[in-house]
Amino acid sequence: MKCKKCGSKAVINMRQHKLGLCCDHFLQWFTNQTQRFIKKYKMFEFQDRILLAVSGGKDSLALWDVIHRLGYKADGLYINLGINHDTSYSQRSMEKVKNFAHDQDLKLIIADIEEMEGASIPEAARFTLRGKDKPCSTCGITKRHVMNHIARQGEYDVLATGHNLDDEVAVLFGNTINWQMGYLLRQHPVLESSPKGFIRKVKPFFRFYERETAAYAFLRGIDYIHDECPFAVGAKTIYYKEMLNQMESKRPGLKLNFYLSFLRAKEEGYFAELRAMHAEDFNLCETCGQPTSAPKQCAYCRTWERTRIAKSAIK
Amino acid sequence: MKCKKCGSKAVINMRQHKLGLCCDHFLQWFTNQTQRFIKKYKMFEFQDRILLAVSGGKDSLALWDVIHRLGYKADGLYINLGINHDTSYSQRSMEKVKNFAHDQDLKLIIADIEEMEGASIPEAARFTLRGKDKPCSTCGITKRHVMNHIARQGEYDVLATGHNLDDEVAVLFGNTINWQMGYLLRQHPVLESSPKGFIRKVKPFFRFYERETAAYAFLRGIDYIHDECPFAVGAKTIYYKEMLNQMESKRPGLKLNFYLSFLRAKEEGYFAELRAMHAEDFNLCETCGQPTSAPKQCAYCRTWERTRIAKSAIK
Repeated sequence: MKCKKCGSKAVINMRQHKLGLCCDHFLQWFTNQTQRFIKKYKMFEFQDRILLAVSGGKDSLALWDVIHRLGYKADGLYINLGINHDTSYSQRSMEKVKNFAHDQDLKLIIADIEEMEGASIPEAARFTLRGKDKPCSTCGITKRHVMNHIARQGEYDVLATGHNLDDEVAVLFGNTINWQMGYLLRQHPVLESSPKGFIRKVKPFFRFYERETAAYAFLRGIDYIHDECPFAVGAKTIYYKEMLNQMESKRPGLKLNFYLSFLRAKEEGYFAELRAMHAEDFNLCETCGQPTSAPKQCAYCRTWERTRIAKSAIK
Repeated sequence: MKCKKCGSKAVINMRQHKLGLCCDHFLQWFTNQTQRFIKKYKMFEFQDRILLAVSGGKDSLALWDVIHRLGYKADGLYINLGINHDTSYSQRSMEKVKNFAHDQDLKLIIADIEEMEGASIPEAARFTLRGKDKPCSTCGITKRHVMNHIARQGEYDVLATGHNLDDEVAVLFGNTINWQMGYLLRQHPVLESSPKGFIRKVKPFFRFYERETAAYAFLRGIDYIHDECPFAVGAKTIYYKEMLNQMESKRPGLKLNFYLSFLRAKEEGYFAELRAMHAEDFNLCETCGQPTSAPKQCAYCRTWERTRIAKSAIK
């Protein structure tokens, strides 16, 4: 396989684009494509202040690298979830993020859940029984809350995350297999801010396959954490990714087409916004003031209040 | 595994219903469920004249058997497509249908494509290049046309087909993976008649898994053709069925839930009928007078006219 641009040996073959590229041309292509997606989907401008959620994995660090190179101003936000049993997962991923920020001279904000709320994610899950044996739902609630809170507090224009196409397609697949129309209506690479206080959210990598973001991180020599979160084992999205990869290998481009044709159907107005949440459907949480669909206290404040009560009771 | 009703040895375990049944109770359950679906989805009444498309396979013969036992009046329609190279597929399946109708003393109409149009399905596909190496698209056009034509000519109230849940779910999956909204809008177990001349169409077995219709046919001793059409090898729907069965085995009920939640989303009005075809979008074919979305001649008449011209040219 030869590079389509220069004829030298290709390091990657992207079957869905029928495109093989050498190292240099792949890095160039990847960077240009990111810029193209940012513009095409009107994600942000050069003067915008971007908050980028970084986990220490390949996607978010690659995204930080690319948008920094493209000349955008993005500060990083690392949320220390305290997932440290067995593998020191949080500890090690935080190190990767810190090193990257330090080497590139980028501003990094660290939000430490244990410092903020007095307990770690696994503890909260255990004490509140939310998620039973898995803390994934507590973790999701917490990350969404903290990202929004810090983005607003820091007066950022937009919150960016490193989700790639495989992530997005797995979620889309899960929502479709159950026809969860509420979620389908809300799934989009650009979510506008809401008057009640949700920050604008964008996913500049949503059209890249996972292996492309991995290739970018690898070829740039970015030092990232390779393991998945230890709680992700057996997650439905991982299973859906396997199914989709199986289909992709039979029909290259299937994943991209699945997602893009979904966006097209939405743009063309085929989904009726019957139950989409509107600003007036949201309340402001009595405790933290962030928007919530709950009547009084948001899920985040409820979860962590219960955790603190339960934790102090067993002391 | 024991029968849930009587405690004797179960012959089938339907994991999606957590229901194991012995032979007698399964046959009873299957028959009662069919009656329930017919009523719930308002498919037809006892006084209606039903035309049932029978292929000689397990589904359509099982359906004929069940609705006959339930006391409905259904005549059979067998379409002889002339697919006889190698395996005499059409010949053998027609024999099964004829024997069944004879044994049960049921009225059978046979439509012979070669007699009607002067060529077989494989010839038409070859001469018109529609479908290139596969005649499936020609076959689909032809069957739909002939079923509608004969149902109207015979003044039937409704056309029934033996499609089971696996069939429906595979089509739904294929339409969803490409977000073909036009097809998604039209997919339903009951399609009302249209003023321009489409007969009402129903699928009473749409909630049964394929293995259930097979079990019914087997346990009733129905003699049906076991092979798939020789042209079906490698068809996308067969591949989708495999994928869905893989997921079903991990999560029993996934297939049923996928289809029922889709119907629910439609009923709740989540799909905007932007491009659904309305009566005024249809013309009447200049040649046969049946409704068509084409401006002058319908796809059926075009295909078979071309076939006759091509066939006579090489004689």
